[in-house]
Amino acid sequence: MPRRLVLAAAQLGPIQRAEGREVAVGRMVRLLELAHRRGAEVVVFPELALTTFFPRWYEDDLAAADHWYESAMPSNATAPLFEAARRHGIGFHLGYAEKTPDGRRFNTAIYVHPSGQVALKYRKVHLPGHAEHDPQRRVQHLEKRYFEVGDLGFPVVRAPVGGNDVNIGMLICNDRRWPEAWRVLGMQQVELVMLGYNTPSLNMANRGFEAHHLRVFHSHLSVQAGCYQNACFAAAVAKAGTEDGHELFGHSIIVNPQGEIMAQATSWEDELIIADCDLEMCRLGRETIFDFAAHRRPDAYGPITARAGSQPPPAWTAAAG
Amino acid sequence: MPRRLVLAAAQLGPIQRAEGREVAVGRMVRLLELAHRRGAEVVVFPELALTTFFPRWYEDDLAAADHWYESAMPSNATAPLFEAARRHGIGFHLGYAEKTPDGRRFNTAIYVHPSGQVALKYRKVHLPGHAEHDPQRRVQHLEKRYFEVGDLGFPVVRAPVGGNDVNIGMLICNDRRWPEAWRVLGMQQVELVMLGYNTPSLNMANRGFEAHHLRVFHSHLSVQAGCYQNACFAAAVAKAGTEDGHELFGHSIIVNPQGEIMAQATSWEDELIIADCDLEMCRLGRETIFDFAAHRRPDAYGPITARAGSQPPPAWTAAAG
Repeated sequence: MPRRLVLAAAQLGPIQRAEGREVAVGRMVRLLELAHRRGAEVVVFPELALTTFFPRWYEDDLAAADHWYESAMPSNATAPLFEAARRHGIGFHLGYAEKTPDGRRFNTAIYVHPSGQVALKYRKVHLPGHAEHDPQRRVQHLEKRYFEVGDLGFPVVRAPVGGNDVNIGMLICNDRRWPEAWRVLGMQQVELVMLGYNTPSLNMANRGFEAHHLRVFHSHLSVQAGCYQNACFAAAVAKAGTEDGHELFGHSIIVNPQGEIMAQATSWEDELIIADCDLEMCRLGRETIFDFAAHRRPDAYGPITARAGSQPPPAWTAAAG
Repeated sequence: MPRRLVLAAAQLGPIQRAEGREVAVGRMVRLLELAHRRGAEVVVFPELALTTFFPRWYEDDLAAADHWYESAMPSNATAPLFEAARRHGIGFHLGYAEKTPDGRRFNTAIYVHPSGQVALKYRKVHLPGHAEHDPQRRVQHLEKRYFEVGDLGFPVVRAPVGGNDVNIGMLICNDRRWPEAWRVLGMQQVELVMLGYNTPSLNMANRGFEAHHLRVFHSHLSVQAGCYQNACFAAAVAKAGTEDGHELFGHSIIVNPQGEIMAQATSWEDELIIADCDLEMCRLGRETIFDFAAHRRPDAYGPITARAGSQPPPAWTAAAG
């Protein structure tokens, strides 16, 4: 029996530092309405979709950055998005900076059911960058300063998305490069990964010879491999374009369980891409080449969970001839 | 300081069932000599490089298949390859079916130092296919019948390869699709993964809608992602062409730590491809975006080693509105 889902990824163009949340929310409402007219049942918005990517600026005092965070969801500023979703019967995924009542800060994503209820929340685990000001970098990347490591693991839930119950999970930006993150979702039979990102077009670490032209390739490679190896769909959605003088790449994609790109954004602006997904495609991989129960060998995977860092291997020396 | 390695991947065309090991070894010696003339310092031969891919045929009695296995390495039949390596000062990687003195059977690969000593041995962990005759399949794939799961883990050793000590590891065929296998190598700072394969061009499981035209893409995707995400080189080397009426795809590749294909075989025959590798390229990934100690979060990876199979997620239900 086919289980179809019309899936939309709503790339956002840049949000300048001076722009308020109501500007971003207005743009998202228009994208959601467009998605509705195109027959989409769910819309995936990017990471930190309400503001500029503020971790590029250093603040000595964290409290001075509090205005970038949401302490309520929905809030007055975001309520129009929840209302539009309810009006059109569309669920949506939204990334934002979360500040909890007890003062903890996370890089967070939620899936909001058309009723306005949050069906799934995820807090980013793989925070890139650094916690202190790095004088070597051309631009700071202070996610390790502004956020704690997510404390919710990689949750998957079976929730109504469009006309079906779908196993949904989330990754945020740098998570997509880590096969462990995809695998923990795959171990829970994820069918659709919602994934937002803000990724600079140029590497600003200023360390050696990384090829800028490969950055979109690395993003796509990671998402396509994650989908293929875990037999799932993904919507990987960018905030793109030149934000406060800093270029973020776009190339948002929707990928199927064979690792194929079904749709791709080609602008650096607000842009909607749509794919008609047959969720039953997830079964082929899961029941054959990636039948985990039949083929995985956790006894051989010990180092993956035993420690964070790598260790040098032993040396071999040829015996005297 | 540059650490260069001239790396050769020696794809083999088909080996028919009627052909003896001396035919295959003769072809490999010629490829090794060609590699030497081209300045290569190491040659990577494929999985099960001495015979046809025999797991496509069912034998009720395993002993009737004993002639496919090597009980000594080197043997009279393989000695010319070891001698050629010594003569030219080239190390090589070889895959073969191993039968141990106590009667155990493995799908094995070794790296042979030019001295003729085995510097590293690996036994395939991710055996694909099935153990019993499967009447639904158009062609059998009986690796789970003919081999035990490898008992050596995923070893990495620092060994002389060309003029440098290099951290080498191995994967065999289906292993390349499993990010866990790559990661266990990466956790040991692998710099070069030697990887042989025999992969049918058509899926013979006869189950549904797998796209045959994606099979080379899936192979490359897995190798490129494995190299990028673990900051290593790989030589992924096929036995290719029509073997006893069954087509194996080629497209052997050498991949760098950015996930780029440096060289690719384009025939289905014996074919040598070469790449000049700067081993220092492994450092960029390892010291920045894939600095494991700084960024990995094993606390969130528990399910990867906790069990083999996946589990369905919990259901979420909207509260009454």
